[in-house]
Amino acid sequence: MHQGGPSSPSCSSTCDCFPLRHLNTAACGSETLLKPQKHELTYPSRMGSVLIFYLCYLLCLGLGLACVVCVCVWNSHWRGGFAWDGSGLQFNWHPVLMVTGLVVLYGNGAVVYRIPLTWGQNKLPWKLLHAALMLLALILSIVGLCAVFDNHNKNNIPNLYSLHSWIGITATALFAMQWVVGMAGFLLPCTPMSLRKLLKPIHVWLGGGILLLSIAASISGINEKLFFVLKGNQTYSGFPSEGVFGNTLGVLIVAFGLVVLKILSNSRWQRPDSRPEDLAYSPLLQEEN
Amino acid sequence: MHQGGPSSPSCSSTCDCFPLRHLNTAACGSETLLKPQKHELTYPSRMGSVLIFYLCYLLCLGLGLACVVCVCVWNSHWRGGFAWDGSGLQFNWHPVLMVTGLVVLYGNGAVVYRIPLTWGQNKLPWKLLHAALMLLALILSIVGLCAVFDNHNKNNIPNLYSLHSWIGITATALFAMQWVVGMAGFLLPCTPMSLRKLLKPIHVWLGGGILLLSIAASISGINEKLFFVLKGNQTYSGFPSEGVFGNTLGVLIVAFGLVVLKILSNSRWQRPDSRPEDLAYSPLLQEEN
Repeated sequence: MHQGGPSSPSCSSTCDCFPLRHLNTAACGSETLLKPQKHELTYPSRMGSVLIFYLCYLLCLGLGLACVVCVCVWNSHWRGGFAWDGSGLQFNWHPVLMVTGLVVLYGNGAVVYRIPLTWGQNKLPWKLLHAALMLLALILSIVGLCAVFDNHNKNNIPNLYSLHSWIGITATALFAMQWVVGMAGFLLPCTPMSLRKLLKPIHVWLGGGILLLSIAASISGINEKLFFVLKGNQTYSGFPSEGVFGNTLGVLIVAFGLVVLKILSNSRWQRPDSRPEDLAYSPLLQEEN
Repeated sequence: MHQGGPSSPSCSSTCDCFPLRHLNTAACGSETLLKPQKHELTYPSRMGSVLIFYLCYLLCLGLGLACVVCVCVWNSHWRGGFAWDGSGLQFNWHPVLMVTGLVVLYGNGAVVYRIPLTWGQNKLPWKLLHAALMLLALILSIVGLCAVFDNHNKNNIPNLYSLHSWIGITATALFAMQWVVGMAGFLLPCTPMSLRKLLKPIHVWLGGGILLLSIAASISGINEKLFFVLKGNQTYSGFPSEGVFGNTLGVLIVAFGLVVLKILSNSRWQRPDSRPEDLAYSPLLQEEN
């Protein structure tokens, strides 16, 4: 990022008057920076980076699976199982589908591009897999919302009054918007390259933001449900097994979110054509983005 | 990141057998990549980037202030104000101090390095400001925890049984650990450079992770409190003014988190000596990190 040539156009006008001028030292004649820089990672370092990635990815898969298993066990073992008849058993689909769709599938869909094995291959199949995983996640989330709206309506319970519901519905609405804009922006061949370049950082940031919202909605939802159902003989404050199990599910969800955040935030694990410098300058953008 | 020289040592052994080999094309003799690359942003692009940063930063300050004002108004106007006598008025310090410390001050402390005006200056004063803001945030969070533990103990309410409390105590414990390790790792002059290099990505990732936990804890806490107190004539499900106000506070907290995430995730707004390529190779590391 610090290389440049004497022919760089912005030297005289910006070197001494702009807060970012140190970014432009090369353009102002630092000859040492004109030499090719050894910016590749050494072999052991790259090998270590790939190994750590796969450890994190395995952890991501394992934690995701654990979240899905735990939310199913909670609702089948302690909450009576599942039905689609407007009863409390219909409500039980809500946590299962939201955790599976809006957290686990969503998080796994977000990290697809980071798998190093895919980097030497054409990006299109991986774009399609990303879009397909996200569509499946979105469908599960919408069915999960239908489960709770239908249950509320049949039992005369108002909808969308709690903070949990505000955050959850916002996460799902942003997710639906993100999927449609992502589809139009990155998969339709007629979308101009300039628009894709503009959209990409917003898509990546909002992707992380939706995960933040979905985790906040999950934690507040599990917490609220446990307060609702653990009353009488078995209050939540008495540390009953269901309370401890539900809390453990919440901790697993947060741990899953932290691992996804780790994978997304490590610049070494970005698909190379998506690195900032390539996004701004690489001709790959015209072939693959 | 894609430059290299013919003398790069890892060429023959890795070019055709390693999943990251395309990162090393330059080292394998791609002559076009030996030329100096024009990686600086053009002046209008840099100017635009700086302007957008300051808009985001203003939004971050504005949303942070709005969160603090709202949480104070909620607890003074609807919850009866503040005291330190073990009563419910003592509990009211808990949301105020946690939102102010663990969310707003913490988020503002995290983005200090991103302010472009500071980039041309010595990093040490900004490190000290980062550490001081984080210490103040940590102290407020710990006092906020004391408020609720003391209130629970004096009213024979068990501690740490809910998912909200598990996530909140984990966030504060990780924050305390992060502050101590950050202090030892980045401010003590005797810490080896190799250890700083190792710690930095973990510090940055865990920093984002703690914000995720603190937002999840805040949302679940506000949601839980509103269910606790909005009963009888004014149930939460009847959309009373306190419920809508509390939900709005939750939305402001999430919006603040999204803006902080936006500032942290934009690689153009990273202090230059912290960009990935500099972290790995720049001699600046030995002067400033």
